[in-house]
Amino acid sequence: MGIINGKEFIDRLNKLQNEIWYDGKKIEGNISDHPAFKGIIKTKSSLYNLQTKDELMNEMTYCLPGEHDPIGLSYLQPKTKNDLRKRRNMIEHWARHTHGMMGRSPDYMNTVMMSFASSAELLRDKENCFPEHILDMYKQAAKHDLSFTHTFITPQVNRSQSYFGSSEKPISAKVIDRTEKGLIVQGARLLATQGGLTDEILVFSAPKFFFETDEAFAFSIPSNTKGVKFITRESFVLSESSFNHPLSSRYEEMDSIVVFDQVLVPWNRVFFYDNVEAAKDFMTKSSFHAFTFHQVVIRQMIKVEFLLGVAQLLVDTINVSEYQHIQEKLSEIIVGLETIKALIEKSENDAQLDEFGYMRPSLIPLQVISTIIPTLYPRFTEIIQLIGASGMVTLPTENAFDSEIREDLDQYLQATNTNAEERVKIFRLAWDLTMSSFGTRETHYERYFFGDPIRISSRLYTSYPKQQQVNMIKAFLHADVDD
Amino acid sequence: MGIINGKEFIDRLNKLQNEIWYDGKKIEGNISDHPAFKGIIKTKSSLYNLQTKDELMNEMTYCLPGEHDPIGLSYLQPKTKNDLRKRRNMIEHWARHTHGMMGRSPDYMNTVMMSFASSAELLRDKENCFPEHILDMYKQAAKHDLSFTHTFITPQVNRSQSYFGSSEKPISAKVIDRTEKGLIVQGARLLATQGGLTDEILVFSAPKFFFETDEAFAFSIPSNTKGVKFITRESFVLSESSFNHPLSSRYEEMDSIVVFDQVLVPWNRVFFYDNVEAAKDFMTKSSFHAFTFHQVVIRQMIKVEFLLGVAQLLVDTINVSEYQHIQEKLSEIIVGLETIKALIEKSENDAQLDEFGYMRPSLIPLQVISTIIPTLYPRFTEIIQLIGASGMVTLPTENAFDSEIREDLDQYLQATNTNAEERVKIFRLAWDLTMSSFGTRETHYERYFFGDPIRISSRLYTSYPKQQQVNMIKAFLHADVDD
Amino acid sequence: MGIINGKEFIDRLNKLQNEIWYDGKKIEGNISDHPAFKGIIKTKSSLYNLQTKDELMNEMTYCLPGEHDPIGLSYLQPKTKNDLRKRRNMIEHWARHTHGMMGRSPDYMNTVMMSFASSAELLRDKENCFPEHILDMYKQAAKHDLSFTHTFITPQVNRSQSYFGSSEKPISAKVIDRTEKGLIVQGARLLATQGGLTDEILVFSAPKFFFETDEAFAFSIPSNTKGVKFITRESFVLSESSFNHPLSSRYEEMDSIVVFDQVLVPWNRVFFYDNVEAAKDFMTKSSFHAFTFHQVVIRQMIKVEFLLGVAQLLVDTINVSEYQHIQEKLSEIIVGLETIKALIEKSENDAQLDEFGYMRPSLIPLQVISTIIPTLYPRFTEIIQLIGASGMVTLPTENAFDSEIREDLDQYLQATNTNAEERVKIFRLAWDLTMSSFGTRETHYERYFFGDPIRISSRLYTSYPKQQQVNMIKAFLHADVDD
Amino acid sequence: MGIINGKEFIDRLNKLQNEIWYDGKKIEGNISDHPAFKGIIKTKSSLYNLQTKDELMNEMTYCLPGEHDPIGLSYLQPKTKNDLRKRRNMIEHWARHTHGMMGRSPDYMNTVMMSFASSAELLRDKENCFPEHILDMYKQAAKHDLSFTHTFITPQVNRSQSYFGSSEKPISAKVIDRTEKGLIVQGARLLATQGGLTDEILVFSAPKFFFETDEAFAFSIPSNTKGVKFITRESFVLSESSFNHPLSSRYEEMDSIVVFDQVLVPWNRVFFYDNVEAAKDFMTKSSFHAFTFHQVVIRQMIKVEFLLGVAQLLVDTINVSEYQHIQEKLSEIIVGLETIKALIEKSENDAQLDEFGYMRPSLIPLQVISTIIPTLYPRFTEIIQLIGASGMVTLPTENAFDSEIREDLDQYLQATNTNAEERVKIFRLAWDLTMSSFGTRETHYERYFFGDPIRISSRLYTSYPKQQQVNMIKAFLHADVDD
Repeated sequence: MGIINGKEFIDRLNKLQNEIWYDGKKIEGNISDHPAFKGIIKTKSSLYNLQTKDELMNEMTYCLPGEHDPIGLSYLQPKTKNDLRKRRNMIEHWARHTHGMMGRSPDYMNTVMMSFASSAELLRDKENCFPEHILDMYKQAAKHDLSFTHTFITPQVNRSQSYFGSSEKPISAKVIDRTEKGLIVQGARLLATQGGLTDEILVFSAPKFFFETDEAFAFSIPSNTKGVKFITRESFVLSESSFNHPLSSRYEEMDSIVVFDQVLVPWNRVFFYDNVEAAKDFMTKSSFHAFTFHQVVIRQMIKVEFLLGVAQLLVDTINVSEYQHIQEKLSEIIVGLETIKALIEKSENDAQLDEFGYMRPSLIPLQVISTIIPTLYPRFTEIIQLIGASGMVTLPTENAFDSEIREDLDQYLQATNTNAEERVKIFRLAWDLTMSSFGTRETHYERYFFGDPIRISSRLYTSYPKQQQVNMIKAFLHADVDD
Repeated sequence: MGIINGKEFIDRLNKLQNEIWYDGKKIEGNISDHPAFKGIIKTKSSLYNLQTKDELMNEMTYCLPGEHDPIGLSYLQPKTKNDLRKRRNMIEHWARHTHGMMGRSPDYMNTVMMSFASSAELLRDKENCFPEHILDMYKQAAKHDLSFTHTFITPQVNRSQSYFGSSEKPISAKVIDRTEKGLIVQGARLLATQGGLTDEILVFSAPKFFFETDEAFAFSIPSNTKGVKFITRESFVLSESSFNHPLSSRYEEMDSIVVFDQVLVPWNRVFFYDNVEAAKDFMTKSSFHAFTFHQVVIRQMIKVEFLLGVAQLLVDTINVSEYQHIQEKLSEIIVGLETIKALIEKSENDAQLDEFGYMRPSLIPLQVISTIIPTLYPRFTEIIQLIGASGMVTLPTENAFDSEIREDLDQYLQATNTNAEERVKIFRLAWDLTMSSFGTRETHYERYFFGDPIRISSRLYTSYPKQQQVNMIKAFLHADVDD
Repeated sequence: MGIINGKEFIDRLNKLQNEIWYDGKKIEGNISDHPAFKGIIKTKSSLYNLQTKDELMNEMTYCLPGEHDPIGLSYLQPKTKNDLRKRRNMIEHWARHTHGMMGRSPDYMNTVMMSFASSAELLRDKENCFPEHILDMYKQAAKHDLSFTHTFITPQVNRSQSYFGSSEKPISAKVIDRTEKGLIVQGARLLATQGGLTDEILVFSAPKFFFETDEAFAFSIPSNTKGVKFITRESFVLSESSFNHPLSSRYEEMDSIVVFDQVLVPWNRVFFYDNVEAAKDFMTKSSFHAFTFHQVVIRQMIKVEFLLGVAQLLVDTINVSEYQHIQEKLSEIIVGLETIKALIEKSENDAQLDEFGYMRPSLIPLQVISTIIPTLYPRFTEIIQLIGASGMVTLPTENAFDSEIREDLDQYLQATNTNAEERVKIFRLAWDLTMSSFGTRETHYERYFFGDPIRISSRLYTSYPKQQQVNMIKAFLHADVDD
Repeated sequence: MGIINGKEFIDRLNKLQNEIWYDGKKIEGNISDHPAFKGIIKTKSSLYNLQTKDELMNEMTYCLPGEHDPIGLSYLQPKTKNDLRKRRNMIEHWARHTHGMMGRSPDYMNTVMMSFASSAELLRDKENCFPEHILDMYKQAAKHDLSFTHTFITPQVNRSQSYFGSSEKPISAKVIDRTEKGLIVQGARLLATQGGLTDEILVFSAPKFFFETDEAFAFSIPSNTKGVKFITRESFVLSESSFNHPLSSRYEEMDSIVVFDQVLVPWNRVFFYDNVEAAKDFMTKSSFHAFTFHQVVIRQMIKVEFLLGVAQLLVDTINVSEYQHIQEKLSEIIVGLETIKALIEKSENDAQLDEFGYMRPSLIPLQVISTIIPTLYPRFTEIIQLIGASGMVTLPTENAFDSEIREDLDQYLQATNTNAEERVKIFRLAWDLTMSSFGTRETHYERYFFGDPIRISSRLYTSYPKQQQVNMIKAFLHADVDD
């Protein structure tokens, strides 16, 4: 047991027969054959293969003491700064393979599970809390290389501050009963990326202003648990052509609404329930944010690198590097990339052992990235559009190049340093990255990954230690000029 | 003769059998039945119907002195400020019917033809110039209510300032021969919106830095002229469902590359050729900019109104109007809308009779709009995304509402003031407007409508009269304090 | 009786002997001789002279029916759109004479008084309201060409939303007693620009969240009323040299805290008191905002014209007009200026007769200006700094040019099109406008003139009619595609 | 010999009797007594005292091998990353003592000299180059703790790109003769901060587009060399009161134009001359940028810390921390500060030994800071003004608090958590930092420290390695989907 390869991942997933509703129909047969899902499943499978390759295995896996089976390194609980750097290296590998385009790459959710396990002790001896269930789940996950998604966003019925939420029937998923066998959960959660495409689904609630007891829970259950339904949005896969749709054909992860219809969550899958205090503590005092942010921002760094590459390739293709305003725009991306890199490194350098013996990256630098990425990422996609300019609009398709008008295209779409086909491929990539329905969903995803950008910014302010600076000013105000 | 209705438009178009290449195939049969084109043709047809409705006919048409057949008011050559206001009213009607989403609504191109006719005298007695051909074409157009597109963007081979352009075979369309029957044109032009969907195509060159004699021409020919090919991009029509794709199903205009393959332009269709000076003069001194900008910015005003409505409807739906940052964002749109309105009105109030006896709107206020719209429009689409937030992502389709999971959707997607279906429709509209491939193309279209935003801004600076202000400062610097 | 000239203004002011505290000392003797005040008083006096000049008298004054003495046109209650345009012309004259630098030019406060008078009827028959006192005051003001300032900002003790304000002794000025002779007022108001430099001081309260009865009043009293003290800030007059400090030597208006120490306000000076409802109504339903905003934004338009002139003169002086980023920056100012102009014109064109028979400018366009000026003005001053660049820093003084090192200066500070002295004068002007303590106060003044910019923006949103746009969207969502 | 204390600095400076022209007069007597200079000289003297304090001496000085006299640590040529960190610590001490307000703190120029010495070998065996003079000067400087300024900006006659510069008499300082005794220099340089307030003046030319032989030089001479004149601007010291002007009374450094009137530069002071190639190489290949940027950005980091402290103290004083927009603004400063910190640390972590055996900080992270600080710093000062709002305007002076109206001030200017006097001190600090003539000069200084912001940005783009990113994209475009 231990790491799986791509085929094992696909076979296990197909076997689950999760209940997925797509465009009003329940999906039958192998999910890996469905046009809307085959691309992402194939890509994900290639990620699993990556960890089994001889030349990378060493960097992508580790063995537990006394064990022989390699385990995915994303499960590693870091105890030293070097462990953190090994984790970074592994995350970079997976992210680079998918250009940072896969939000739910396996390492993301594995890191979440690892952070839960690393902070399970926070729940020790608290009412309705089962830290050992977390630890057990974590071990299972590592041993079987389980894939996960999670869901925590509650339906957006009313976003007014003074809205308490009230409905006869639950809207947001809640515990409606506690039975001998387990919890009974009813209601929905929004926005499980890759919902239905994983072995397990992790469900918990982000603490919020009005937080009721029956919403204060966390658990993980198999995606095919009875009563769990995934309702997807429209697919942004437009074709299988990697010429026409180089990104969406590979990286469209799909998002789902998750409905819990009288779902029984067995006790051994319950991490905690009916304990508002524990739920809040577990989010704010655990290593969840530190470890998860660390994974996310490394992926985002790789994605920004990708944007920089695309931008510069456009510049080369139409030969505009001499323009000052083009140089300024590229500089903006460079500044963003180097800033993110420096902050990641700082968070690792300033890491500290937490009370449970794990090496937590420093949170402030990671929070800074989370504060700037919601404006940086959209701005960088805008820069790519501004460089591409009118060239982004009239882009012929792969079939056009395979037809009798190819000669016209070759003549009229040639670029300075590139032939017409290559040029159209480059521009189609830029378009798919920033202007296709897939591309704009990516932009929106990064903009909202960490939550409402305005609150992220408030959170940084609130959590930042400012008193020392203030004291310095006060001292200065009373200083003698002769000092 | 005179105005046509929607059916006449469609019939005439189908009869033309223009050579349109879509995804590597030449379109056969009626263009109005093709999935990629039927939506826009239907919408355009409804615009023609609008001018034949009794209650609007008075506002949408006029009669030439001594004639009985009503002619589209977009052909009216304004001689008074009141004429300008009548034109505005007509433009608003058509724009409002299509929410400003149709860039090539008939009035746009009719206005271009009208502006050409109104300035034809500029070409009188100049070498290789045929002002009477312009006047004749204008009369034909008005009489038969011809539909037009135009194309003037040259292929983006190399955008470096020091690039002269050179290729054995022409890339940008050029006159390669002058025969007894007419000009022979070879080469391509990019980006004819609605290319192939109109009776005629107007071709001319925007003056540029290196402007060669064989590029200095203007003419109009039927779209089905031998040797004229329209090569389209991928269609952004995703379905015919107005629930799923309320805008793209109706307003996707398509853009084409236009190839001229040894095309004969008969002399009576040539406006001018081989005269660089005349080409420059005709663009800069004619009423082309004044009349065309006037049409464009009125359409954009209506589009911004539409954006404001969508933004506010989102705000109402999820009840977020109390948030200061939401109020600020909506205010931004209001400021933009009111600014555009005021500038349009000012351009009309400051209109002046030109040397040919036509009432030209003042250009500076229109140029100001052209300078700000490339940033305003994208910003407003961003605001809509920021208001929609995570609600923009997981939107089910029409079929989902027609299936057995409708009950789940009704429960979990309900909004404060609206049921689930209505709410999803609202959010899908917001998505189609700002995030679908159609929506981003609209954004890009407005951003680049007037050309490279940086040059627009330079042009405003250069053409603006600044000396008076400078003189005031100089006088002040030498003023006696006691003055 | 009627308009006064500069000398009359100065003589009357000196005679008042207002209690002004400057840098810890009570000013004795003629205020017009004091170094901190002589510049502004001289400039203000030149404004009064302007209205007595033969060539302008016609545009600057009017006569009441049956009267012969000309009255300042700023007192004119407009009844037609033409009246509004006459008012605009008069405001432009005064503003241009002072380059828009004088916030409390006489026309500003005269307009305030005129607006009060024009809406006095709103107070008719309301408790503790005396509309006839307003009308009487207005007549006195016009007849004697009285100068005014006003003060309404309450001390900024605590700006938290949940702060009610409470102190044994009043902080913000309040009515503490109602006697036979009049009200007794105690407390302070902040920020009376030109406080102590006018005949009268108008005191009223802007409605706010927690608004108590004893704060709901309005009155006007002579500046030298017993118990009224003006406590000034540091003066930003650095010298009398118009070479060194071309603006601050002329336009430094000074701001004061106004202290009311058991001040008796005679009944005939009380407009209303102890009536929260009336106070609110009088601010929101009167023509106060419409008429006052109209005056203010015209002055700001002239000021922006001045900024444009200075910016362009810098560009000419160091010959940088060829740079694209310079052109873009100048364009920004042009866009701002033309936008403001168009909105002012629109507010006049859309003016409507109010219930009292006066022609009110449309408020929305004026509110739009009030929303954008707090960012435009600071940005334009930044642009001037960016054009001036390092040239803004090492600027020699007038005395240096009068010394033996003048030859060095002449050689080393010469500019392309200008000699050293002129160039230094131009740059010193740019510096005084944007970087001196005077200049930054001007910037702050425009930024906060209409109140907290964030609230201005919220107010625009709240007062803007949006329902029609929303209804259009709703109709569209339910429209048949065939429509 | 070795480090000096404050008194020694002042005595030596007074003895020099540098030729300084202030407001048209040549300064006579001790410069340390002159009102415009006494504040900055006292502050600088306190910096020298700092290095002699027992508790800091260890961190502020080092000893050369075999020597006993401690030398200022700013002279240390770093050979390890630890040396870099020691340097950082020393720079932080001095910067913190002056809140980052002193641009020409001794460590800045000492670092410049150190960087020159560390790269002197670049000039070895080149024509007209004297590396040994640099090394000798460096030793002298360290041994005597000499103070320096430098000057390199050429007069801004004409900034057009096509301007070559030409004038019978030199404008920009040039070598006009080469004699037995040394070079003869004639012309001017702009903007020597602290010009005339140091022992020595270092003169060199930044390479530029049109760079002529006679401008290609570098040397250092005593400030009192015959023919050297310092022409100052107006002083921004408004008073000696640290209540009224807490920053300008201490940190106003003054800027001067430096005139060279037939100045003889002895050969042993010449570093190189008449060698364009060497001049360019010495700027671009030496460690000048790496070491100097390192010092500068550490000082700027401390200054941003100071801004954050002031901003937060304002927030506390008027109790506005609950407002989301205030939190956002403070977050902006936090993001800036943490970004700068992370980039500095990264430049040290990525430092590498150069060809001469010195440990050079990585330049890219430092260049990134140089690219963002010109917009960050002005924005942060704007944030402080926006928080202070109307409270920044009417600030009474120290004398007012010492007068009989103090009671009024105490009552009406009290703040929630602070008495009136303290509150006024806090606001006056915020004003002096951001709005006084001193404050705006600070802002302009940081905006232009590294040169024209637009060129800095271009330089970052040009020097950044981008090929790897581009190659990744190219590989992706040709990748098989199955990879």
